[in-house]
Amino acid sequence: MNQNVIAKLSDILKSEGASALMIAPSPDMQFLANSSPFLCERFQALIVQDNGDFFYICNLLTVDEAKEFMDGHPVYGWFDCDDFTETVKKAFEEHGLIGKTIAVNGAVRAFNICAIQEKVDVTFINGKEFLERTRIIKTPEEMENLRRASHISDLVFADIVKIIRPGITEEEIQKNLYQLALKHGGIPNGKGGLVASGSNAALPHYFGGKKVIGEKDIVQMDYGCSVNGLRSDMTRTVFVGEPTEREKQIYHTVLRANLAGEAAAVNGAYIPDIEAAARGVIKEAGFGPYFTHRLGHGIGYAGHESPNITATNQTHLQPGMAFSIEPGIYIKDEIGIRIEDLVMINEKGEQEILNKAPKEMIVIK
Amino acid sequence: MNQNVIAKLSDILKSEGASALMIAPSPDMQFLANSSPFLCERFQALIVQDNGDFFYICNLLTVDEAKEFMDGHPVYGWFDCDDFTETVKKAFEEHGLIGKTIAVNGAVRAFNICAIQEKVDVTFINGKEFLERTRIIKTPEEMENLRRASHISDLVFADIVKIIRPGITEEEIQKNLYQLALKHGGIPNGKGGLVASGSNAALPHYFGGKKVIGEKDIVQMDYGCSVNGLRSDMTRTVFVGEPTEREKQIYHTVLRANLAGEAAAVNGAYIPDIEAAARGVIKEAGFGPYFTHRLGHGIGYAGHESPNITATNQTHLQPGMAFSIEPGIYIKDEIGIRIEDLVMINEKGEQEILNKAPKEMIVIK
Repeated sequence: MNQNVIAKLSDILKSEGASALMIAPSPDMQFLANSSPFLCERFQALIVQDNGDFFYICNLLTVDEAKEFMDGHPVYGWFDCDDFTETVKKAFEEHGLIGKTIAVNGAVRAFNICAIQEKVDVTFINGKEFLERTRIIKTPEEMENLRRASHISDLVFADIVKIIRPGITEEEIQKNLYQLALKHGGIPNGKGGLVASGSNAALPHYFGGKKVIGEKDIVQMDYGCSVNGLRSDMTRTVFVGEPTEREKQIYHTVLRANLAGEAAAVNGAYIPDIEAAARGVIKEAGFGPYFTHRLGHGIGYAGHESPNITATNQTHLQPGMAFSIEPGIYIKDEIGIRIEDLVMINEKGEQEILNKAPKEMIVIK
Repeated sequence: MNQNVIAKLSDILKSEGASALMIAPSPDMQFLANSSPFLCERFQALIVQDNGDFFYICNLLTVDEAKEFMDGHPVYGWFDCDDFTETVKKAFEEHGLIGKTIAVNGAVRAFNICAIQEKVDVTFINGKEFLERTRIIKTPEEMENLRRASHISDLVFADIVKIIRPGITEEEIQKNLYQLALKHGGIPNGKGGLVASGSNAALPHYFGGKKVIGEKDIVQMDYGCSVNGLRSDMTRTVFVGEPTEREKQIYHTVLRANLAGEAAAVNGAYIPDIEAAARGVIKEAGFGPYFTHRLGHGIGYAGHESPNITATNQTHLQPGMAFSIEPGIYIKDEIGIRIEDLVMINEKGEQEILNKAPKEMIVIK
């Protein structure tokens, strides 16, 4: 258990008026406990109290596994044929949590807290960002892992552009992204990445399917990997066959927005200003309504974590922060273009663009 | 949208005193809407009301995708730089849900309902089983898909025993399970299955790692696939090298428990009696404390769904129900044996054991 993090978390809990944080298996738990058991529908959580004490509640299935990372702290096991809320009640009584406010991390399931609230007198609040705040400033070692993970994404890109051709399917590109990440020493995110071609790319979270890349097509790839738990996340959109003038215009608008966002994302910058710099480019070009998401998100042990790069996150960049800059234009049934890099402010306060893969328009013929 | 299911769900909501069910992307949503968009940390849900009306709330990212399966019903989109609870409030106002009780399915996240409760006057309750109840009785077509999925697991088993040998790793076996499921026409569950060898098998949810299978080892494989969305789930444990007398005793105890559970699991059986039949065998053999989980779980569009085969599920088997029978003995740092089949009561009320892969002890030399 990472005691430095526990100490930071205690302070956050006190300032937020919560007596504990309930953490279900997730990158949060991996970060804090260096382990994160398999989560099925059975209730399971690590509970960290504001006094720095902690305990675990899980099904008997997972008790032995949990004991291995709990450093002798209590593990409360419940049996499938009993009601898990009885075990939660007992554990909360023993730790003075009855009547208290408990925050939940992003992985706790709603039906579990509904069941607990029926039997145990506690109030739950949203604590999704509490653990994220303890790691928003990366350590030098974490920064190095972020650099390595993004470097792997760059290497994968150099390889994948040689593979993309008319006739290959989105899923085949996805599998290649997966294998290439492994080849270059990363652990691929999910199934390799999101691969969307043609008008599928207008759906920003389209996953990739059986569509065959045509003689004249676009291919949007959003992918990444992890190195020692720290993640990369990069998007490039390439053309197969010569793009139209309108496609070129959209591509260059997104690219200029990406560059404007990155130029603004320096140490000390006010986050809403960064967002405005990129969004302004797209608005001015007349595509404002088609840039439907935030400019970026923080990254680390989780693919999306603090700090969000939005118009409403009223904070300033600091050394150690890492986040994406990923403007996009999505026009239904027509086209989707996104260009995403990771940006980090290093310990000296210098900006590092972690992705160096080319962003100039690539046309595969 | 499956209107038959909506009608059944309306009745369940009324009888449970809930005005609506909130369904996040999941096998539940796939079953009901024949689609289930990618879920990231952004709030997203289908809300079905007790009057049969329904609407969707999601980030702008997913609006176009949701419209495709919402049959013209409202899709409320929220923008990253706004507070999603404002959109939830507006949608709930327009649908008369303010002040009402809303049930949540198994996939809704706790931090989202905490955030909603801060801004919107609603009460959330546990509705994890509501949609599961609408599909607990399989249709003839679903039964046929369950049969096919389990038949694929049998074929995979016949192939995998030829591949297991000293020197192969757990992860390599896992990858083979994945590829073999594909080869035989199924969509593999997850990364192929849980593969646990030696004392790792004492952790019932151990996932599979870099451990190399030894000259004298046990290999526990819990895997499955899906056919048209309907799933299989089977566990076999095989020996590499000659087992000891104690290992044989444990294996045969688990096998006898499996057979006793299956013998009891006939149409009309009281579920706690089925559980007792299998657990009794293990208790009598002196291994009671080492059978740490329920006897089985229902299966269908989700890997685990109703009916649970537990001592506390006080219902009777009916034609159309499908579930696992999976006793196990897990002794820390020593051994883990589990034998799992799927069982279905068909429309004629006959019991079908869906898995036919051999359960007699297999020793690979």
